[in-house]
Amino acid sequence: MEEKAVRELLENVRKGRIGIDEAMERLRGLPFEDLGYACIDHHRGLRRGASEVIFGEGKTAEEILGIVQGMCEQGDNILVTRLAPEKAERVITRYPEATYHENSRVLVLENRPVEDRGKGEILVISAGTSDIPVAEEAALTARFMGNRVETVYDLGVSGLHRLLAHREKIAAAAVLIVVAGMEGALPSVVGGMVDKPVIAVPTSIGYGAGLGGIAALLGMLNSCAAGVTVVNIDNGFGAGYAASLINRL
Amino acid sequence: MEEKAVRELLENVRKGRIGIDEAMERLRGLPFEDLGYACIDHHRGLRRGASEVIFGEGKTAEEILGIVQGMCEQGDNILVTRLAPEKAERVITRYPEATYHENSRVLVLENRPVEDRGKGEILVISAGTSDIPVAEEAALTARFMGNRVETVYDLGVSGLHRLLAHREKIAAAAVLIVVAGMEGALPSVVGGMVDKPVIAVPTSIGYGAGLGGIAALLGMLNSCAAGVTVVNIDNGFGAGYAASLINRL
Amino acid sequence: MEEKAVRELLENVRKGRIGIDEAMERLRGLPFEDLGYACIDHHRGLRRGASEVIFGEGKTAEEILGIVQGMCEQGDNILVTRLAPEKAERVITRYPEATYHENSRVLVLENRPVEDRGKGEILVISAGTSDIPVAEEAALTARFMGNRVETVYDLGVSGLHRLLAHREKIAAAAVLIVVAGMEGALPSVVGGMVDKPVIAVPTSIGYGAGLGGIAALLGMLNSCAAGVTVVNIDNGFGAGYAASLINRL
Amino acid sequence: MEEKAVRELLENVRKGRIGIDEAMERLRGLPFEDLGYACIDHHRGLRRGASEVIFGEGKTAEEILGIVQGMCEQGDNILVTRLAPEKAERVITRYPEATYHENSRVLVLENRPVEDRGKGEILVISAGTSDIPVAEEAALTARFMGNRVETVYDLGVSGLHRLLAHREKIAAAAVLIVVAGMEGALPSVVGGMVDKPVIAVPTSIGYGAGLGGIAALLGMLNSCAAGVTVVNIDNGFGAGYAASLINRL
Amino acid sequence: MEEKAVRELLENVRKGRIGIDEAMERLRGLPFEDLGYACIDHHRGLRRGASEVIFGEGKTAEEILGIVQGMCEQGDNILVTRLAPEKAERVITRYPEATYHENSRVLVLENRPVEDRGKGEILVISAGTSDIPVAEEAALTARFMGNRVETVYDLGVSGLHRLLAHREKIAAAAVLIVVAGMEGALPSVVGGMVDKPVIAVPTSIGYGAGLGGIAALLGMLNSCAAGVTVVNIDNGFGAGYAASLINRL
Amino acid sequence: MEEKAVRELLENVRKGRIGIDEAMERLRGLPFEDLGYACIDHHRGLRRGASEVIFGEGKTAEEILGIVQGMCEQGDNILVTRLAPEKAERVITRYPEATYHENSRVLVLENRPVEDRGKGEILVISAGTSDIPVAEEAALTARFMGNRVETVYDLGVSGLHRLLAHREKIAAAAVLIVVAGMEGALPSVVGGMVDKPVIAVPTSIGYGAGLGGIAALLGMLNSCAAGVTVVNIDNGFGAGYAASLINRL
Amino acid sequence: MEEKAVRELLENVRKGRIGIDEAMERLRGLPFEDLGYACIDHHRGLRRGASEVIFGEGKTAEEILGIVQGMCEQGDNILVTRLAPEKAERVITRYPEATYHENSRVLVLENRPVEDRGKGEILVISAGTSDIPVAEEAALTARFMGNRVETVYDLGVSGLHRLLAHREKIAAAAVLIVVAGMEGALPSVVGGMVDKPVIAVPTSIGYGAGLGGIAALLGMLNSCAAGVTVVNIDNGFGAGYAASLINRL
Amino acid sequence: MEEKAVRELLENVRKGRIGIDEAMERLRGLPFEDLGYACIDHHRGLRRGASEVIFGEGKTAEEILGIVQGMCEQGDNILVTRLAPEKAERVITRYPEATYHENSRVLVLENRPVEDRGKGEILVISAGTSDIPVAEEAALTARFMGNRVETVYDLGVSGLHRLLAHREKIAAAAVLIVVAGMEGALPSVVGGMVDKPVIAVPTSIGYGAGLGGIAALLGMLNSCAAGVTVVNIDNGFGAGYAASLINRL
Repeated sequence: MEEKAVRELLENVRKGRIGIDEAMERLRGLPFEDLGYACIDHHRGLRRGASEVIFGEGKTAEEILGIVQGMCEQGDNILVTRLAPEKAERVITRYPEATYHENSRVLVLENRPVEDRGKGEILVISAGTSDIPVAEEAALTARFMGNRVETVYDLGVSGLHRLLAHREKIAAAAVLIVVAGMEGALPSVVGGMVDKPVIAVPTSIGYGAGLGGIAALLGMLNSCAAGVTVVNIDNGFGAGYAASLINRL
Repeated sequence: MEEKAVRELLENVRKGRIGIDEAMERLRGLPFEDLGYACIDHHRGLRRGASEVIFGEGKTAEEILGIVQGMCEQGDNILVTRLAPEKAERVITRYPEATYHENSRVLVLENRPVEDRGKGEILVISAGTSDIPVAEEAALTARFMGNRVETVYDLGVSGLHRLLAHREKIAAAAVLIVVAGMEGALPSVVGGMVDKPVIAVPTSIGYGAGLGGIAALLGMLNSCAAGVTVVNIDNGFGAGYAASLINRL
Repeated sequence: MEEKAVRELLENVRKGRIGIDEAMERLRGLPFEDLGYACIDHHRGLRRGASEVIFGEGKTAEEILGIVQGMCEQGDNILVTRLAPEKAERVITRYPEATYHENSRVLVLENRPVEDRGKGEILVISAGTSDIPVAEEAALTARFMGNRVETVYDLGVSGLHRLLAHREKIAAAAVLIVVAGMEGALPSVVGGMVDKPVIAVPTSIGYGAGLGGIAALLGMLNSCAAGVTVVNIDNGFGAGYAASLINRL
Repeated sequence: MEEKAVRELLENVRKGRIGIDEAMERLRGLPFEDLGYACIDHHRGLRRGASEVIFGEGKTAEEILGIVQGMCEQGDNILVTRLAPEKAERVITRYPEATYHENSRVLVLENRPVEDRGKGEILVISAGTSDIPVAEEAALTARFMGNRVETVYDLGVSGLHRLLAHREKIAAAAVLIVVAGMEGALPSVVGGMVDKPVIAVPTSIGYGAGLGGIAALLGMLNSCAAGVTVVNIDNGFGAGYAASLINRL
Repeated sequence: MEEKAVRELLENVRKGRIGIDEAMERLRGLPFEDLGYACIDHHRGLRRGASEVIFGEGKTAEEILGIVQGMCEQGDNILVTRLAPEKAERVITRYPEATYHENSRVLVLENRPVEDRGKGEILVISAGTSDIPVAEEAALTARFMGNRVETVYDLGVSGLHRLLAHREKIAAAAVLIVVAGMEGALPSVVGGMVDKPVIAVPTSIGYGAGLGGIAALLGMLNSCAAGVTVVNIDNGFGAGYAASLINRL
Repeated sequence: MEEKAVRELLENVRKGRIGIDEAMERLRGLPFEDLGYACIDHHRGLRRGASEVIFGEGKTAEEILGIVQGMCEQGDNILVTRLAPEKAERVITRYPEATYHENSRVLVLENRPVEDRGKGEILVISAGTSDIPVAEEAALTARFMGNRVETVYDLGVSGLHRLLAHREKIAAAAVLIVVAGMEGALPSVVGGMVDKPVIAVPTSIGYGAGLGGIAALLGMLNSCAAGVTVVNIDNGFGAGYAASLINRL
Repeated sequence: MEEKAVRELLENVRKGRIGIDEAMERLRGLPFEDLGYACIDHHRGLRRGASEVIFGEGKTAEEILGIVQGMCEQGDNILVTRLAPEKAERVITRYPEATYHENSRVLVLENRPVEDRGKGEILVISAGTSDIPVAEEAALTARFMGNRVETVYDLGVSGLHRLLAHREKIAAAAVLIVVAGMEGALPSVVGGMVDKPVIAVPTSIGYGAGLGGIAALLGMLNSCAAGVTVVNIDNGFGAGYAASLINRL
Repeated sequence: MEEKAVRELLENVRKGRIGIDEAMERLRGLPFEDLGYACIDHHRGLRRGASEVIFGEGKTAEEILGIVQGMCEQGDNILVTRLAPEKAERVITRYPEATYHENSRVLVLENRPVEDRGKGEILVISAGTSDIPVAEEAALTARFMGNRVETVYDLGVSGLHRLLAHREKIAAAAVLIVVAGMEGALPSVVGGMVDKPVIAVPTSIGYGAGLGGIAALLGMLNSCAAGVTVVNIDNGFGAGYAASLINRL
């Protein structure tokens, strides 16, 4: 809309209605985004008029409902992460077409079919059953952003046979998200089996010297397998988002 | 080669030369790789008979020369990372066609032209001039692996104008590697300007509360920009390698 | 008042009513503050007979009411920080003219109009919506201490356009307080846009490798922008107080 | 200079030499700084054509001489911090009018008299004799930026009498920089004696549980005296710079 | 069972029903475990058809009951660790023959008598009374795995006489598990009294600088007594399991 | 009592009732404490048949009542530390002569008058009002162990005048216990005012970079005042106990 | 020898030469070890008159030579760990029959043949080539203590095929020592392949977030494979010693 | 001396030579120490005109010689801690009567006989031979301050017999200083054997998870033996100083 303002300004210059000095001054004062710099606010707006992500933690049910309503009016698809069950219930009551994944605390509301935008398949692997909620957050995010997503859960490094039994799925994936707590060794093992990008997600699962996920995080950062990159502890959303960007290239 | 052994075994079975039980036993005993599981040793062998990477730290000049000689005989291209100048000199003396990048301590020896295998361009950005050696390691790795690589150095977040002056290069890149020490804030800012994968590399540049790169590492892991993934402190090689895998999808 | 005691002592010396030795002894024993050393107990008494600040955490509602009553009798203005809602309610019941800001857990009771003592305007900026309570504590403290305060919230570094859209307010401020959690990068970016003092406030907002605000704190201490100083995690009061001292120079 | 380009563009629009669409397009592509956003690169350029600061660590003598030469041609004043003695010697050889402070590793070269730009006096206090180099860096930076600076060294908290003996200087200062290693308690004590801004600088002086300055840093961040803000360990430059910005308000 | 599939494949090869190439291909695709690699999933299955361990934390009562039922049908013995009392109650209701040890939160259900598989006696020592739950988890695990287990509790290093009074038991043990919180010094003292393997278990007992068991853990890792190895904080199960493996040699 | 057994043994040797070899064997087997080694279990038994200390945390009301009953039968004085109010209530119901200090969670039951065993006076100082519970634990412990104890609370280092107003009490003390949270600077200041032993007690009071008392602990360990020694965070009991041992010399 | 003294004492008692009281007193005063308590000083004396271990670090060549000479006179076998090359040279000059392993800085001097005291074979595995010195220290220690030792080096988790190629050696070992730096994941993988005790040795190999071996240490402590116990970073000796104790059971 | 100034002032008041107002003003301005507050600078001046301690680290040989000369002129005894050998040599050259203890880097120069000021004996115990330098610093400090000092070195907790062999010395001491690195367990064991004050000194001896003495420090702070207090890592001087203050009570 403000593009219009610049255009008017230029037209007024052309028509001689305003002087060069005044035009200079007004150009200086224009809000920055009017000039077309592509600064997108990723977490809130993945794509204007297309799909939106809301970080649910720390927002009241009212605040979330307010944002959701605004988006629905625009026909957007909506993903809410880290949404407590009691808040989810209130959203579902008003928007029964929404789906709440209690395990991963993710709510999805699709006002339009999600379009497949990915090149290949994203594979989400978790080391233990306790890591599944984080893995699910990653998988739901990637699906929401238009990717085919496959999941394989409970593949710990101390049971290689389970891991190797899935080697075909592993070999077939375009991007891999590997979720693990405790010692966080799984991404190193998986990273050694493929020549595809691996995004490692440490989880806070464990106790004592696990230090709330720090042990797993350090393990992943020190992975001896090249090609592994890492996101914050329990950040399934970030991994799913990054995998989507990669899969769109 | 051992595939041949399995084939021979099967042929002996077919020809009745060995019994089923014996075949069972020998199958069980075959080295694992014979069965074709694609477990590649990435850091040492990116691609057998194609290109090799040697981690130079902790190896003597003799050891390195030994490995290099073996590879050259196979016509491989060779990348040596973290190579001290005095060791590099000895390699160059014997292989004058090799190039040593003293700043980043990387040696490259191309026995064959590097083939372009990437989809788009990889952009390597550094926050400060002190971060350049790590950035160069990333750039040289990515080039060695067959990518077009662009670099822009010294774009600190406290001088936004420098960053914005390069916004076209930033927008044009397929994958971005952002290298920063001190507070490590640059990947967040860059990540907010693009919807492409950003690999953040913390460096050990800084002092005091920089904790040898831990401050930058934590900053990047907590980035408010989605799509940012992180590698170990000073791990330019890892970032260049991961970016290459992404750019080949 | 005790200045009077010293004066009396000296007069008694002059009049020969007490000897030198006795005077020496009594001088030695005088409470320290009687001699006029300007040691003020800042957190509790910003200015005797003027305004008082109470740190509400760890005090019972009764204790707080007791202190408030004493101050009201002197006609003081009162600021209570970190005051839980249920305690606030009890204060409000007795002093309905007080205002409680639930978000920032601050209670303000103005028995006299707050006098403008600042040179310029203090601008409080927050990176995310979750950082607002801490930002509000800073803003309310600065207003209470006699400053004009402006606030701009939700200016993350990953959305530069929002930040740049407010560049005039930023340029106009005499002192800036920048509040951010997660990677804590905003003070670096803002510090690079102005040549005014910037007080950075890390918040405990974030998770995992955010380490309860340590990541943001380290980021701010390592800021590549000169002129940035830092206070403790979530210490909005401290930032508002320091900004007030600066703005009075 | 690029302001000229915008002006020409507008004139061409006014004269009808280029169309609105083309003008829109070209405006969009203009380098950001042309529009006059005041993004200054503080560490390198405090004020273009006025005075410059060079961070000497990690730069070769040649690089430093190159930068110094360029600045001298513009008649700038120059401050080089963290400059090793052997590099300083080479600068002094070429620019004998420069002064090198070996203790604090700071080199100052004044091509023009430093103009007094400060309101009041900046007082730099150090806790121990070992903290003096950091204190000197702060004092030299503040003087270079146009402030009257007073220093009082070796005022540990375990010897209150020394501290109190200087209470008049302390009371007279407009801004205070307090430098301390070990337990870092001095800023709390000083902060309780004045109602002026106090910038605390932790130093790496100490051993064992001093953790290279972390103990002092934590102590200062947790100061019970309001009005104290903190910079990075050993960051005398940052404290001097921030104090200057405050003293100019 | 899948061994059968390989056998069939070989027989088909022998009978000429399938060609070598096809056989190669199918061999490549067989699930890994079919080839007899001895990868056991230790935590869940100590020994197929023999005894099973379930990590109870993070599993619902339903999930646990489901697993227990499946195992009981196979006649397995079952150990559930870290089982909350309310979940234990539900298991006991259905399987009244199970025993729940509330202190250590361990449930044992023996469908067959536990066979003695150990060479000697395992001695479990705890430093304080608060360490007993972890010590009990170790003792119950070792007994469940077929070992004679002796326990001596409350032998702190600051009361040597208590320790020395038990020196005969200590000398008689084949393997020792020493459980201690706070400074974690007991394993060093015990390790100096015997020439048998000592497994040290730090506990989270303590406060302040105990750092949730980190102090004890570090103490044990730095033990001046050779022959001491360490497990994670509060990991009684891991110690009991490792001691069992040792005692079976 | 077992001394009797050794005596009997020797008498039997003298009377020729048992041989030398047998006597050797039995001597070897005697419980260690029988030989008179003065190993006292300090925390539980300060002095047999005199006074006892129970660490209340982690013990049930039943367990505590059991121990108390045993001691009362011996006429011991009893101190219970870290006792939750609901457990204290149950003890008081049965032993109404006991006194419970809710603030410090200490219960004292004196069956005999406490005898004065100290040389001088122990002074307990706290920095803030929130540190008082820990200070009280120290004071009650020292009184229980037979010392005259004086207390002065709320003497922060940022209000020197309050501290100096009490300089006579400070000078008069034989041993000083200084309790402080946040930056933990008070022991340094007090340590500089006296030439008496100072025991510093860090508390967990504070937030953010206070790290639950670690900042105060580090500050105290790095105190520039010689003569200061330190105990664990919040360990008022330990400080009171150590001060008592010192005061008895 | 002192056993003799007790015997004499008893005989004197029997003969009535000394009274019971005096005997009591003298028994009380006897050095503790005379009573036969089996307190062995493990690091220095594995077995009196048999073999000795010297920790070479921090001892001068003279001190080491002195100890070695004393032991040689007794015919002991000697192991010196962490011995710098220049000191080793001096030992070798005097004792040319000694062998110095420069890589692991271990010196072995066998005055008698080492007797095989182990039940099975100890297998030492290292993850990378840089971990070999620590692995060698473990292997040499275990051999010195009378065990058959096998070694397999350079088996990283990111190259599973190498690991699996050695699965027979792994299955055959009685005790396994697994040495790894960086993420320290190898013990988890190996621990999942065997039901034998695994001793994990973290090494300081790595950089950045490897934190000098802390990442590997945490990874190993959090291993999801039961039966893994851990020793200090780079403590090859400790692992070899513990494995020997286990292998002797 | 300045006491004289106050006295003169009062006399002038009495004689009417100066007015009350002027007297008030001058009193306010008097250096603090004139009023007799006993603030001693402990580390530098233990007792004016009696004995002095110089912290040698970070001072040049010239600076140290300067201070020593000044003190010798006053006839003071002098203790220099942390003095490098080459600096010590220069002091000894000029003052041949001084004694330099190279191991502990302490220099003592006694111009007058040290007077015995202690009540009992101070016992310094070290755990290992590597801890002796720190133990010696403690012992030399305590002797210098007028105490009888006994030392027993190399009493590790893993060799209880050595410890118990010295139980009489331990029982006889009035104050104990226990010096230990690695796991730092010795103070707990010693603390359990006596009812005297124990000062624990952690040393930086150890490696890996010893974290430069942090493990020992944490162990000592968490000691289960009451009556143990702790000083900074390697702070032998501090322990000796504190023990002296205690022994003088």
